[in-house]
Parts: sequence; C-alpha cells; structure tokens
Amino acid sequence: MKITINQKNFKKSLSLVEKIVSKNSTLPILNNILLRTENGRLKLSATNLELGINYILGAKIDEVGDIAIPGRILTDFINGITDEKISLTTKSNVLLINSANFKTQILGSSSKDFPIIPKVKGSILAVVNAKKLKTNLLSVADAMSLSEARPELAGVFIKIEREKTIFAATDSFRLSEKIEKIKSNQEATIILPRNAVTELIRVCGELEGDISINLSDNQISFSSEDFEFISRVIDGSYPDYKKIIPDKFLSRVLISKTELENSVRLAGLFSSNISDVKLQCQDSSMILVARNPDKGEVETRVDALLKNEPFEVVVNYHYLLDGLKVLSEEKVIIEYNGSGSPLVLKPSETELGETYLIMPLRNQG
Amino acid sequence: MKITINQKNFKKSLSLVEKIVSKNSTLPILNNILLRTENGRLKLSATNLELGINYILGAKIDEVGDIAIPGRILTDFINGITDEKISLTTKSNVLLINSANFKTQILGSSSKDFPIIPKVKGSILAVVNAKKLKTNLLSVADAMSLSEARPELAGVFIKIEREKTIFAATDSFRLSEKIEKIKSNQEATIILPRNAVTELIRVCGELEGDISINLSDNQISFSSEDFEFISRVIDGSYPDYKKIIPDKFLSRVLISKTELENSVRLAGLFSSNISDVKLQCQDSSMILVARNPDKGEVETRVDALLKNEPFEVVVNYHYLLDGLKVLSEEKVIIEYNGSGSPLVLKPSETELGETYLIMPLRNQG
Repeated sequence: MKITINQKNFKKSLSLVEKIVSKNSTLPILNNILLRTENGRLKLSATNLELGINYILGAKIDEVGDIAIPGRILTDFINGITDEKISLTTKSNVLLINSANFKTQILGSSSKDFPIIPKVKGSILAVVNAKKLKTNLLSVADAMSLSEARPELAGVFIKIEREKTIFAATDSFRLSEKIEKIKSNQEATIILPRNAVTELIRVCGELEGDISINLSDNQISFSSEDFEFISRVIDGSYPDYKKIIPDKFLSRVLISKTELENSVRLAGLFSSNISDVKLQCQDSSMILVARNPDKGEVETRVDALLKNEPFEVVVNYHYLLDGLKVLSEEKVIIEYNGSGSPLVLKPSETELGETYLIMPLRNQG
Repeated sequence: MKITINQKNFKKSLSLVEKIVSKNSTLPILNNILLRTENGRLKLSATNLELGINYILGAKIDEVGDIAIPGRILTDFINGITDEKISLTTKSNVLLINSANFKTQILGSSSKDFPIIPKVKGSILAVVNAKKLKTNLLSVADAMSLSEARPELAGVFIKIEREKTIFAATDSFRLSEKIEKIKSNQEATIILPRNAVTELIRVCGELEGDISINLSDNQISFSSEDFEFISRVIDGSYPDYKKIIPDKFLSRVLISKTELENSVRLAGLFSSNISDVKLQCQDSSMILVARNPDKGEVETRVDALLKNEPFEVVVNYHYLLDGLKVLSEEKVIIEYNGSGSPLVLKPSETELGETYLIMPLRNQG
C-alpha cells in the first residue's frame, strides 16, 4: 500500500471507527483498525465481533494494499499532528507514516488476521436521518435492562411499520416509547443490543444526512455512502408492552418539567436506599417528600394543575428523572391510574410520540 | 442558631470549604462543615486534621449558635435550590433549612465534637495577591515528590526574602523554581505539604485580592478578611538545590514552546517503558527520536536556533512536558551542560524568574 491522505479527513474518520476498537481484549487483533484500499479510496474497519464499522474516505492511491494497525496509537498520533498531507506506505507488517516534519513507523499485523465483518444484503427497510435516529434511540436508551437475565430486554425494540417506526425499551421497572413518523417499504421488528445502541448513538452524532437500515438473517446494518455500521440483533420476541400502557386515567397533572426536575433532584438527596420519593398531588401544587433516617428529610413544592382527584404515589426518583429528561417539551403531563398502576409521563403536545411509564414503589393513595 | 442567609453567597462559601471535607474518613465528624455565628456573621469551617479552612460570610443573625452538618449533602442541597432567601435554624442536633418552596431537616452533630482548627498568631510575613500565589504554586507543584521517602521533598519550598519570594520543588529527577518579586518584612523558609499546596491552589483560584501569610510554631496561615487557610508545615531542612543549577552552559537552543510540546507529545507515543525521548540539537533544528520495540518509532523535527556545539540528550518526556507547561513565554531556552549534567529550561525573558531542570536519562553526546 502506498497512498497520500489529508490529515483532517483521516483524523475525523479514525475518530468514528476508533471507539469500536476493543481494549484489553484477549484477541489482540481486535485492538487494530484495518486499513484497506478499495475502489480508489481508503476503507477503515474496526470490530469487536459483536458489532463492526466501516468508513471510506478519499485518498490518492499509488499502490493498493492493506494492513491492520493498533487503533489507539494510530489515532493518538494522527490527532497530534498538524501537517496537512500525509503519506502512508506499508513495508511487510509495518506502516510508514511520513510528512514534511516527521518519519514514523508503526508495527502492525497482516490483514489476513483481521476478522471479516459480515455483509448485510437485505433490501432497504427504511431511510432515516442520522440525527433523528440518534434522538430516537437516546429517548429510550436509559430504559434498557442492564441485566442479561432476560436477553430480549437488554436492547432497544425497533418496530418498523409503513407510516411510522416505534422505538421502545423497558427493564420492567419503567418503560420508554418513542414513535417517529418514518415511511418504510416493509415492516419488521428488531431488538438491537445495548452496546450497538450506545455506539450507534455516538456515531450518528458525528454523521450528517440519511442512513439506510438493512436486515438479513440476524444482522442489521445502518449505512450511508461512506459509512456502514453492522450489528447482530437479539434473537427472541419482545414482550407485548403495549397492553400495559393505560389508555385512560383517574387523575392528571400538568407541570413544568424544569421545576419538577429540580425538586426531584433535591428530594432525591434525602431518599432512602430504595431511592423513594413521594409525590402528593393537590389542586394547585405537587409536594415532594423524602425521608432518610440517617440524613434528614425534605418537603418541597412545585406549581401544578390537577384534573380530577388528588393522589399520592411513591416512585424511584432516578426513574422519574430519566423520564423527565427524555420528554422534549417544557410542559409535561403525569397521569395516575390508581394504586399499583404505572404512572404515565408524556409531553402536553402528544404529537411528539413520547411515552414514559414508571411502576410505583408502593402506593399510599 | 437562627439566621437568614442569601443562597448565592452561601453556595459560593460552601464551595470553598467543602473540598477540604474528608471523604470515607474513619472519623465521621471530619465529613462535616461547622456552622457558627461569630460577630454578627456566619463562619464555616472544615478540616481534615492536616489542614483547615474558615470562611466568614454575611447573615442576618436572630439567635447565635453552632452545629456540624455533613458537608456533602449540605452543599448538594444548597447548590440545587434557587430560592434567594434561606432561613437556617438549629433544633438540638438538626439543622432546619426553610424557604418559600421547601422545608428541610438535615441531621448534624454537636459542634463540641468538631476538632479545633489552630490559630496562627505570628506577625504577617508577607502579603501576596491570591491569583499570583496560585500561579507561583502551580508553576512548581508538578515537581513535588510523590513519595514520602524524603518527607521534605513532598511539598513546596517557600523562601521569603525582603525583596523576593522563591518557590521551589523537586523530586530529585527534575526541579522547578519560580522567583517572584514580593516585598516582605521578615525572612523565613517553609516547606508546605503537598495536600496543602493542591488545596491552596484551588482555593486561591476562587479568591480575589490580597492574602497575608503568617507563621507560628509549625503552622502556617494564608488569610484575608473573610478567609483563613491553615496548614502544618513540614519539619526538616530543604536540600541546597541552588548549587545544582548551572550558571553557565556549553550549548543553548532557542525554540518555540508550542511546537516543541506537540513534537514531544508525538514522540512520547513511541517512547519505551522508561518514557525516553532523544533530543538531537543541530544548527537550525531539534530532531526528536523515540523507539519502542512493540509499537514502532518516530522521528520528528522542530525549528530551533543553536548556539555553540550540536548536542544529543535523552530525557523522560513527561518531565519535559511538565517543564514546558510552566514556562509562561512562547520562546524558550534549553541549555546543555555536558553528559550527565541537568538540562536547563527557561523562558527567553529571564525576568520571569522561571527555571526548570531535568536530569538526563542517559547521555549519548
């Protein structure tokens, strides 16, 4: 391989693929980024076997070739230099990086040792803007289960329909759903694993434009002209969560998100070890109460507008904060459905398609 | 105690004293901040037994008193609220914090259990601007020894003379000295322990105006009207480091600090496990070379102006970066004194009083 490349482009591309590179792996080859010339451009690849990423950038190719190079040192080095034009040359398993101000040799490995990242060949399921995909995943990601006890909950459920796509996640203590209007050619359901969700959110934050979603066998890809993100999908069927979302309510409160967030955070300081905070909803205010035998107690109030009967409910304040965070409007609605029923949070503008459920800790209504 | 206080002032004051509060201490009382009314104002105190801090702020006092309150929850709570006026009332060992929007009780302890922070009664040694004190301590702090093998090196040496104050630190691998023009009434030498240096740097960053330095027995204080920082000093005599600072040179190089820093950082990526980077100084450039049998190698050049003979020296690149960081001018001078002699770094404007010495790793001149 013998190519010339622009430092800024190379740096940006490396930052996209480098995060996928494994650390402390028992398979040292996974610490590498694969560099390969392809159709007159340079392709960078990284994988941790569960997911993989390819990114293609322009380069002047004098001689085709490929090499696997440790991701960390390559990225740190390219980030640190300021020379605009860099030449990359391979000499057996060594990468020579040269420019006006430096001569460098990085020890690499044969590309033959680098694992193959599978191709996803299915037809395009849907096309979605990268930034929008990021927002949708972000609004449900916190609710994914951290435990692997029920593998299907350790990811985001994506249901592609003709007129809309539904994103959902639940760890059985709370549930987050986001409905986005996206036109699709086909219908499909996928459970995307937690790591893939986290990385896809990060990567989409650095991309512009549209992303195509493809699915074949148990692999999914999110790709554009320059870029491809491939992950396995979780095998299994997602619980029919729709039936636990109440379609009516006993009481409803309209409240300011920012004010409630601040008060929940304050009350949380005095919650006990089960993170319990009590919400008492009255005519024109919500009172938050928390007590901890070792720390003390707090009672704080927020203006609120109540419809129907006053109520009282105890929730885990972390879940409440997570829920408020994903609602994209300042005015939020909290719906109460009686003792033991989930509390429903949504923006007052329901067109936004955001729904967040919290199971109460114990109900003293 | 029954007082009314402004939230913003209270928040700012707590942020100053809270960092001194111990964490995970075997003496739980040290996790507290002492609140005490004093001469119509509120005094906050914290100590970790090695050093202590007092800060006094205005308050409307209805009833005098005192209480010790866990620092973390008090600070988090006061940081989180937005109500302007807060009332603080003690009821046996509980602090009641009330305002328009909340009622809070924090469990505290009797002030009798709180350790006494010693008074430093000596006459004023010197007066120095808080920001200047911070800058001077910062420019030598990195060179303090991390080991306690020689306790006198685990701190900053401060030598107060009539016309100037000298700050110095060394871990025997490198040495940093800063001379500041400060007029003093008396002469004195002090070794300030590492933790006190770190905290004083932080605290001085948040203070304005002048700080008086007092010394009595083995305690030192840095104080203003509202504020007092007290620390023990290290017992022992500081090595006579002046004699190892060369007063002449064999060769000298004038170089850009920023360019050299960038190159050292790049070369450092390829240094071996002893962090060695070789500097080859020639007529119009400095070449940096590093080799690591597991990673690769780099050779990079920086424009430089050499006086006298070319030379070659191998140094720990971390020490070189630390040294360049403290030099406050963009043009720096590096002086070479032959194989085995320390390398001297200083700004080209020597009036700045900054000197940094690095012992070479091995010399191949």
